[in-house]
Amino acid sequence: MLKVGVVGISGYSGCAVLEYLLKHKEVRITYVSASNTRGAVEEIWPHLTGLTKLVCEEYSASKAIELCDLIFLAVPHTIAMTIAPELLKAGKRVIDFSGDYRLPNTDQYAKWYGTEHKDSSNLKKAVYGLPELYREAIKKATLVSNPGCYPTSAILGLAPIASTHSNDISSIIIDAKSGVSGAGRKVTKNFIFCEVNENFKAYKALNHQHAPEIDLHLSKLTGRSISVNFVPHLLPINRGILSTIYVQLKNKMSAEGIHKIYKNFYKTEPFVRVLPLGGQPELRGVAHTNFCDLGFAVNDQVVCITSAIDNLAKGAAGQAVQNMNIMYGFKEEESLL
Amino acid sequence: MLKVGVVGISGYSGCAVLEYLLKHKEVRITYVSASNTRGAVEEIWPHLTGLTKLVCEEYSASKAIELCDLIFLAVPHTIAMTIAPELLKAGKRVIDFSGDYRLPNTDQYAKWYGTEHKDSSNLKKAVYGLPELYREAIKKATLVSNPGCYPTSAILGLAPIASTHSNDISSIIIDAKSGVSGAGRKVTKNFIFCEVNENFKAYKALNHQHAPEIDLHLSKLTGRSISVNFVPHLLPINRGILSTIYVQLKNKMSAEGIHKIYKNFYKTEPFVRVLPLGGQPELRGVAHTNFCDLGFAVNDQVVCITSAIDNLAKGAAGQAVQNMNIMYGFKEEESLL
Amino acid sequence: MLKVGVVGISGYSGCAVLEYLLKHKEVRITYVSASNTRGAVEEIWPHLTGLTKLVCEEYSASKAIELCDLIFLAVPHTIAMTIAPELLKAGKRVIDFSGDYRLPNTDQYAKWYGTEHKDSSNLKKAVYGLPELYREAIKKATLVSNPGCYPTSAILGLAPIASTHSNDISSIIIDAKSGVSGAGRKVTKNFIFCEVNENFKAYKALNHQHAPEIDLHLSKLTGRSISVNFVPHLLPINRGILSTIYVQLKNKMSAEGIHKIYKNFYKTEPFVRVLPLGGQPELRGVAHTNFCDLGFAVNDQVVCITSAIDNLAKGAAGQAVQNMNIMYGFKEEESLL
Amino acid sequence: MLKVGVVGISGYSGCAVLEYLLKHKEVRITYVSASNTRGAVEEIWPHLTGLTKLVCEEYSASKAIELCDLIFLAVPHTIAMTIAPELLKAGKRVIDFSGDYRLPNTDQYAKWYGTEHKDSSNLKKAVYGLPELYREAIKKATLVSNPGCYPTSAILGLAPIASTHSNDISSIIIDAKSGVSGAGRKVTKNFIFCEVNENFKAYKALNHQHAPEIDLHLSKLTGRSISVNFVPHLLPINRGILSTIYVQLKNKMSAEGIHKIYKNFYKTEPFVRVLPLGGQPELRGVAHTNFCDLGFAVNDQVVCITSAIDNLAKGAAGQAVQNMNIMYGFKEEESLL
Repeated sequence: MLKVGVVGISGYSGCAVLEYLLKHKEVRITYVSASNTRGAVEEIWPHLTGLTKLVCEEYSASKAIELCDLIFLAVPHTIAMTIAPELLKAGKRVIDFSGDYRLPNTDQYAKWYGTEHKDSSNLKKAVYGLPELYREAIKKATLVSNPGCYPTSAILGLAPIASTHSNDISSIIIDAKSGVSGAGRKVTKNFIFCEVNENFKAYKALNHQHAPEIDLHLSKLTGRSISVNFVPHLLPINRGILSTIYVQLKNKMSAEGIHKIYKNFYKTEPFVRVLPLGGQPELRGVAHTNFCDLGFAVNDQVVCITSAIDNLAKGAAGQAVQNMNIMYGFKEEESLL
Repeated sequence: MLKVGVVGISGYSGCAVLEYLLKHKEVRITYVSASNTRGAVEEIWPHLTGLTKLVCEEYSASKAIELCDLIFLAVPHTIAMTIAPELLKAGKRVIDFSGDYRLPNTDQYAKWYGTEHKDSSNLKKAVYGLPELYREAIKKATLVSNPGCYPTSAILGLAPIASTHSNDISSIIIDAKSGVSGAGRKVTKNFIFCEVNENFKAYKALNHQHAPEIDLHLSKLTGRSISVNFVPHLLPINRGILSTIYVQLKNKMSAEGIHKIYKNFYKTEPFVRVLPLGGQPELRGVAHTNFCDLGFAVNDQVVCITSAIDNLAKGAAGQAVQNMNIMYGFKEEESLL
Repeated sequence: MLKVGVVGISGYSGCAVLEYLLKHKEVRITYVSASNTRGAVEEIWPHLTGLTKLVCEEYSASKAIELCDLIFLAVPHTIAMTIAPELLKAGKRVIDFSGDYRLPNTDQYAKWYGTEHKDSSNLKKAVYGLPELYREAIKKATLVSNPGCYPTSAILGLAPIASTHSNDISSIIIDAKSGVSGAGRKVTKNFIFCEVNENFKAYKALNHQHAPEIDLHLSKLTGRSISVNFVPHLLPINRGILSTIYVQLKNKMSAEGIHKIYKNFYKTEPFVRVLPLGGQPELRGVAHTNFCDLGFAVNDQVVCITSAIDNLAKGAAGQAVQNMNIMYGFKEEESLL
Repeated sequence: MLKVGVVGISGYSGCAVLEYLLKHKEVRITYVSASNTRGAVEEIWPHLTGLTKLVCEEYSASKAIELCDLIFLAVPHTIAMTIAPELLKAGKRVIDFSGDYRLPNTDQYAKWYGTEHKDSSNLKKAVYGLPELYREAIKKATLVSNPGCYPTSAILGLAPIASTHSNDISSIIIDAKSGVSGAGRKVTKNFIFCEVNENFKAYKALNHQHAPEIDLHLSKLTGRSISVNFVPHLLPINRGILSTIYVQLKNKMSAEGIHKIYKNFYKTEPFVRVLPLGGQPELRGVAHTNFCDLGFAVNDQVVCITSAIDNLAKGAAGQAVQNMNIMYGFKEEESLL
């Protein structure tokens, strides 16, 4: 049994990874911690009453190192890079949920996350944990940087056309809509119930920190410098991201042609479902699952791809467990179906 | 006092116009009907208990003609064009909420509404009831075709840039999100609570009947043939449409430049609010109001305009009352603030 | 024109009273303040953009006294009693939304609100602002203590049977369900969106500070010591309280008998609607209105009364404006219909 | 492998039982049908895409008999009793989700379900599928009548005190609140999104068909004739029932005393969680689980018990699978944790 720890269980994605791990046949949770919460996990998360006797402690690097082979870091941006180095130095493997190891360029990191990067040496070793693009590298990774929720939905929605029709793309617009858990469990006025319920709005329009993450991997995939136009919105629901992606092409394409490319690209992927032509993914179809569902519409030179995930599953904890399964040679679907 | 009637009060927009009219100082409601409902209005809409003694009847043209000067038609597409001709012939004025008099081309009507047009003679006289573009014509109109909810949000979001920078626009994408009342009070499986709540999806992507309505008025405005890419989505809320509009320009524009154009274009409009730069409209900000709120973001040659309305107010009943106020020379804001 | 001020406009009930006052024909808002917010009201509440040029300041007693005849205090419990004395001393009239002047017994206040009362002299002068029971006293009041939202729904649901069948009542259970705005605009973990949405629970069961307020007025009404069993619950909606009230009687009563008592008791009340027998009040029927709607069911000796209000309207700001209208001899419905 | 069939997969509880069975290690689904839907299950329920190749057919008794050992009937009231007899006659075991086999008295059935009972012979053999009370009988049952969702929450909330303090109970009030899926997937105006969202109301107050079902089992448990006062309400959420139960006692009891009784009564039950004193069950804590969570408050002679379940899990499909596990000697938690 693999011994795993979770740092940051009081947040939504920390809790979600705990739920997956409790059902996982190949692992034992040996350590859990959180920054501002102590006590029995079943007191912190009453819905887990009777399902675990784990006790949450203040974070201790030495204890995590002593008790775990693999540690999930479900902590905020800027914190992960202060915790990971010691764990990695001790020979542990780490899967980080934050943005700290996603942008290899430290200037870019400073620009988007508002602080200097503190661990540039490990930054170089980090493998971007999107199995559909980087499965081989993930197998051997010691530090997996779990993708952002928006980039997961956007890159999976764009990878097939970007890799096959790179030179035909003239512009990309990503209009994304996220449930509230995507913001984590922040206690700020913007996220109290009456401010969100029966409401809807865009935020950080054309100016969100996930845009460079998307640009980076599309550029790698195409060998060209790609820059997307990304506008996120806040949906009054708990879970789920739907990205509506508009690709402006230089030449016409048929819906059938697009569909074929996507079916082919993802034909062996266990967690990407290319819907039949005419189908549109719905958030309830992916809620509480690790699937990414994809749908299509075409209007001459404009291709519209809709990409749906559960931001806490394929967009965070589910994908992290999928990465763990790949890293340790477990069945990729274990605990995820 | 103007004598007004409402045909179709059992739907959401019929009810909404009733609510406005009950508060209006210059009108008296003299006739209400619905196709499948009879009895006291306060039984049909219990929230109006104590506010009206009106009784809803089966529709009778002669009664409507006898009792009213102006009739609001809050009936479905394909029905309005069977009711309006008789009223118009009797010299009454009509404000129609449906799509029946919005597309002057009957072939286009047949394509998008699935049936032949039955009243092409009045179609020519219909004035499109968007006061911000057609106020003068509305004043004299006998038949006002009230705009669709999506077109209202889209056209108001696009008119300033389309009229000032027509030749600089290379493509337009409208990613729209509507609350459920936009679909009317249809009793179909797709709209029962558990199918919509905690869900989100696109529908009729790049293939919705409101696209030609938007194209038409943008083309008139610019003198060029404009064809937008329009993808609507269903939001799990009762009221409101947010359209996120992406205009691809041939040349760069600054956010300040855009903002100035919009401030200027709408400077005398009572119901369009151009937010300060940096502000993003929220649906709760326009819910239960007749306002259209506009926000902006710019990224080189891509301008992102967000346009928010209440689909039952500025997107239907509120705009209809605004049109009535214009037609009869009432204060334009009467009963709307 | 009456000059009115609102202290505490950054909360939901402060905003709601502002909305009513902006439409009111007999008053002019001359002063608004909030404890931690400054600037134009339309920046604080963007939905009011274009509707007011008021500027929110830090609270200053001398300014409030200089500029206003009447001041609404929409501040939290324990704060109101530090503000009201100076205003009252200067001869101003005050309508207080908090619990500070609701319990005449200072020991009881200390028990339920967790701190000593600081203004026992004015406490004696406070008139409980429930017009249906205390209209005459309200007319002359200088300090009106606006009722709690739960007590408003509960007392209006119980007053008729309590006053006519006092000795026949053997026990009272109030199972109340409130929308989230009832908790104010508190920024705490319990009220962030994902903790409330798709959730439901009881809180402070049989131990809520509104129970003694209900007991007090029912005891006054009956001349007996009444003690209710009160259990509130948190509903995942913005606005509204539905109280389901179970009265155990010593003798059977018919539904018709109950209905008659209620119809009679409220026959001249503008804001209480006794529904026809068989009708059940719905929260959407009272949302954004100042109405209290009442429904009934009877099972031998158990009478079930359902009482619905909008917690921000009849449960707070609407009732406050109704009280003002009574205090100054304005039409009682002014700005409320 | 046990061969199981599901009749009625197009409803919510039919779908939910399918989801459990797809994960179950001891069974194979060999037959699925629905009354008005045909085709691949993944077309009917797109969220199951890739998880099953089952095809839904029109119901055929001979095919169900040929292919299955056990059949789940997830069909509406009045339909189940027309299907079960033939299956039982052929020696199959049946678990019925409807009300058809819940009331042993056919007069009572006719009164509450509005039609004569058509299968009184099997009615006598039916075992009420509440494992916490009838586990031994369920083991041997050929026909299990799966409890109603409200009765499950109510009876589990009342059984301990009813069985230990039967003679001390003077009255019982059950104020229940259910998510919308409790009504099934009915396409009626009352359940379309805008009629339910941001709304709340009681229905069938003191007159719901689940009351006699609750009375029956409490009477059996106590040996006295018990008659509860039951008022259900419709919550604007998808899943979950919270019953707030008020037991009026003849003598005082302490919260600690009550808590001890419940802890003891359910000490070996895998799916009932008696929360620590002071805890209140939340619907999100039981959503998508088979748990019933119980909390308590006491005020002299009034005991308030709150009981939370997921209406589609412990209130329907989960409990049905638990019953199957008991009938066939599988691990009781199989596929349910």
